[in-house]
Amino acid sequence: MANSRFEYVKKFEQPDLLLLNTWIVVRIDGRGFTKFANKYSWEKPNDRRAIDLMNAAAKAVMSEVTDITIAYGISDEYSFVFHKSCALFERRASKLVSTIVSTFTGYYIYLWSTYFPDKPLSMPLPSFDGRAVCYPSVQNLRDYMSWRQVDCHINNLYNTTFWALIQLGGMDSTEAGKTLQGTFSADKNELLFSKFGINYNNEPEINKKGSVVFRDYELVEPGTHNVAEEAENQAEPVQQSKSQNEKDKKKRAKARIVVEHLDIIKDEFWDRRPWLLSNKPGKVPKEP
Amino acid sequence: MANSRFEYVKKFEQPDLLLLNTWIVVRIDGRGFTKFANKYSWEKPNDRRAIDLMNAAAKAVMSEVTDITIAYGISDEYSFVFHKSCALFERRASKLVSTIVSTFTGYYIYLWSTYFPDKPLSMPLPSFDGRAVCYPSVQNLRDYMSWRQVDCHINNLYNTTFWALIQLGGMDSTEAGKTLQGTFSADKNELLFSKFGINYNNEPEINKKGSVVFRDYELVEPGTHNVAEEAENQAEPVQQSKSQNEKDKKKRAKARIVVEHLDIIKDEFWDRRPWLLSNKPGKVPKEP
Amino acid sequence: MANSRFEYVKKFEQPDLLLLNTWIVVRIDGRGFTKFANKYSWEKPNDRRAIDLMNAAAKAVMSEVTDITIAYGISDEYSFVFHKSCALFERRASKLVSTIVSTFTGYYIYLWSTYFPDKPLSMPLPSFDGRAVCYPSVQNLRDYMSWRQVDCHINNLYNTTFWALIQLGGMDSTEAGKTLQGTFSADKNELLFSKFGINYNNEPEINKKGSVVFRDYELVEPGTHNVAEEAENQAEPVQQSKSQNEKDKKKRAKARIVVEHLDIIKDEFWDRRPWLLSNKPGKVPKEP
Amino acid sequence: MANSRFEYVKKFEQPDLLLLNTWIVVRIDGRGFTKFANKYSWEKPNDRRAIDLMNAAAKAVMSEVTDITIAYGISDEYSFVFHKSCALFERRASKLVSTIVSTFTGYYIYLWSTYFPDKPLSMPLPSFDGRAVCYPSVQNLRDYMSWRQVDCHINNLYNTTFWALIQLGGMDSTEAGKTLQGTFSADKNELLFSKFGINYNNEPEINKKGSVVFRDYELVEPGTHNVAEEAENQAEPVQQSKSQNEKDKKKRAKARIVVEHLDIIKDEFWDRRPWLLSNKPGKVPKEP
Repeated sequence: MANSRFEYVKKFEQPDLLLLNTWIVVRIDGRGFTKFANKYSWEKPNDRRAIDLMNAAAKAVMSEVTDITIAYGISDEYSFVFHKSCALFERRASKLVSTIVSTFTGYYIYLWSTYFPDKPLSMPLPSFDGRAVCYPSVQNLRDYMSWRQVDCHINNLYNTTFWALIQLGGMDSTEAGKTLQGTFSADKNELLFSKFGINYNNEPEINKKGSVVFRDYELVEPGTHNVAEEAENQAEPVQQSKSQNEKDKKKRAKARIVVEHLDIIKDEFWDRRPWLLSNKPGKVPKEP
Repeated sequence: MANSRFEYVKKFEQPDLLLLNTWIVVRIDGRGFTKFANKYSWEKPNDRRAIDLMNAAAKAVMSEVTDITIAYGISDEYSFVFHKSCALFERRASKLVSTIVSTFTGYYIYLWSTYFPDKPLSMPLPSFDGRAVCYPSVQNLRDYMSWRQVDCHINNLYNTTFWALIQLGGMDSTEAGKTLQGTFSADKNELLFSKFGINYNNEPEINKKGSVVFRDYELVEPGTHNVAEEAENQAEPVQQSKSQNEKDKKKRAKARIVVEHLDIIKDEFWDRRPWLLSNKPGKVPKEP
Repeated sequence: MANSRFEYVKKFEQPDLLLLNTWIVVRIDGRGFTKFANKYSWEKPNDRRAIDLMNAAAKAVMSEVTDITIAYGISDEYSFVFHKSCALFERRASKLVSTIVSTFTGYYIYLWSTYFPDKPLSMPLPSFDGRAVCYPSVQNLRDYMSWRQVDCHINNLYNTTFWALIQLGGMDSTEAGKTLQGTFSADKNELLFSKFGINYNNEPEINKKGSVVFRDYELVEPGTHNVAEEAENQAEPVQQSKSQNEKDKKKRAKARIVVEHLDIIKDEFWDRRPWLLSNKPGKVPKEP
Repeated sequence: MANSRFEYVKKFEQPDLLLLNTWIVVRIDGRGFTKFANKYSWEKPNDRRAIDLMNAAAKAVMSEVTDITIAYGISDEYSFVFHKSCALFERRASKLVSTIVSTFTGYYIYLWSTYFPDKPLSMPLPSFDGRAVCYPSVQNLRDYMSWRQVDCHINNLYNTTFWALIQLGGMDSTEAGKTLQGTFSADKNELLFSKFGINYNNEPEINKKGSVVFRDYELVEPGTHNVAEEAENQAEPVQQSKSQNEKDKKKRAKARIVVEHLDIIKDEFWDRRPWLLSNKPGKVPKEP
């Protein structure tokens, strides 16, 4: 509304549009969560309430920012994926990142008391930072997701063994760290089993696989779609009719957002859920 | 910790460092706050509790992110200023913006019930977006601040008159809008006074001036410093000794963060608070 | 070598790396070539010597910058394409653009006298500007190339008709412009034929199609490769062994660089030359 | 002119505007000039014809791109400075860099035969790359210029001594390199004098100081202007009247462009030539 000789300062704002026709991943990370976890005496190696809270916040973000296709979370981080045809905020990096970080943080604080009714939050409050990265191909995007899930596996195996050595083996953290130095996965599996009778395979999926959040439609038969290829062939930012867009939006609004703990590295996950890469809503399953 | 064939995806992250030796302003804005204000039946034209909550969140941000020099807020927006010598997060735009947006949102949600004890928050929650802009000179920075304060004045005069026409004059919003079309400040002042006996000058400073947040030290005599010039002459990102940095940090931690409603367009505000442009903490005032 | 208190200024240089795994197009344009064409009395609508000079310079650029896959030129512009796996200059935009612009300009000036022996160059000299654009998919890249060739066609049909009206029809440029206003391609074809007996289809291919420059290998049977798909599947910047890279480089050095005037919109051009999208050198044809 | 379904590809071009109100330095560097110097048997350590050719090309660039304020060259590099109020090409980095690189290269090739009449150019031709860097303050800009001149001094002292050891002392390059390893300036000065009777101070200014190119107006008395400060106070991109701009342009066109070999580190150079930082043309000196 205002008009003054100072308005020239608006011209210093620099554009930060993300390259068209690329997949956008916004990853957020908890700031100083090691200290934060100690403050609230979270269980080691995984505090189920803390993970459930992360997942609840991510689910809320996905219902509010309907352009998000899929999200994946481990520990204190969450990655939110926008389809390569996404035009939200004209693809401005700062808008996309700040909106997701703000919404996520809001729900994290708001829902805290649901998951930690006995541990009221106090200052300084938890907070998150975030960044956006573009991936040109479906393969790059899937490799990003795989990278995070491999990280989840490696970290969880390490932490499970590390805390077993401490909690069950009576070591202090220095001894436990030394014991694990230079060990491979097989060594840690073996150590868990031989020393503590723990079969790592029987650990909860939520810890081993992390959490994947998406809109749920009817699964399709594998092999009936070649989605990755179809996705690559959508050269131009999808130019659907407005009415088609409205229909898609309604379908999406009807779809249930689910939190699962599945293997997202293998093809099957993607093959059976073609809507994740195609951005076309699937068939809403009948209520049971 | 992890190492896999997927790790190449890290290389897609692009640097977003803000130009050295420039003032960084991170401005955040409430998303959809018109609707949000209606949902919680905020008073028009200004809801004092809503403004106090914004200020409380901004104050909390400033205590946590000690690199912030000054902040200025009106309505549902807040601008946070980093000194041009700031090296926080290597000046990465996404880190600076997301940290401020996240911290601000967290406190906004957390403190909500203090300011609106009778109006519990419900979903969808309020959220904020943000962006960073660089200003090369002190003059550019001060013009930015002046721009926001002029905006505050123009908007508040308009809103005060608009709502007087409705609340006191019995108009509907269309009539009120038409009445104000094409009017100048003088017209609105006159209208307020002649029709409703309201002297705009007597309106609360917090509404007319907005809120400026900063660390408080002893004021200096105007004319004893030429801070703007000194600031410009700090060519290189300030290279202080580590011990000097530690001393400054302690001084800053001791300083009280205040929320005032002052004219930040005129020189006096800046002349009497040389620490704002110099980034050298002033003299901590004795407790009364 | 030098080390001084001034060296901090190096830190102001900002990175300008182009996103990985995207096709890079560097397009250069003649600066003020309308005036330049008049200065040297170039023939209208197309001066064959001027086009040959552009092509010779482009060919020289391709022999020096061996990372270029294909180039396409019309009028006073040329587009140079780097494969999406290109790692030249770490994909720094300014390095890529400036190297191409500099090399092209150098050869343009150097070869001028070969093509215009009777028109010595005088100051101000011709110059070119340039920019880099990233295209994530093969489809985007091919659409870019198609865009330029459609432009070539539309401009050449217009110019051919415009100059026929002037040179053969005795109009001045204002009359010719008015005559063509609002006409479609069919109208121009008809006008050329009915008024001047010119069949546009018989115009030289170099004017109708522009010039495409590439390394020549043995053509393959269409349908034996699916290069676009293969190209998309090269997710990660190609990680060849060093010895394979050396072999490829030698093969490329042996290949003849040709300038052709072909349809690059249809699939056939790309299908028969799989090396353009795969970046694997083809089979060097036997010398005749 | 053209309009087709391919035109969407234009939207992939990303903006690269340089921050307003900052000094822009475009530096260009010869590509592979060590090899190039050997090919044409340039004299060591400095080939006067090669330097004169660089300076002639830089002078030509300055007459064509009238927005350039000052340029500084050493060896195979040249830095061109645009005033912080520069609005050329909307401050688009690729346009600024490519135009300078192209114009410089063009003149370098074109003027070659004037400086090397006995050494005709052959392929591969010399070429240059370039980049743009922004400096927010006068101090930063002057430090950049000082950095280059200190580099010039250090390199020239080293090269002078190195080649004296070879040409006069009969060493090979390995021996010369070893002799100089770890030496300071004073050592090299001493070595030059004691071994070869060379007083480095008597070496040609063009080699010791490099070359500075600018428009020449009447010098002013030092101390009568405070240009740096005045320059800093030009907050907003200068908003002159059109007629004032035209007048300035004419004045600039009349001014002689000179190539000098002066100390640009000390204040005096800048104090006596206020037009360099103020961007206001000075008084054109009377012809002698």
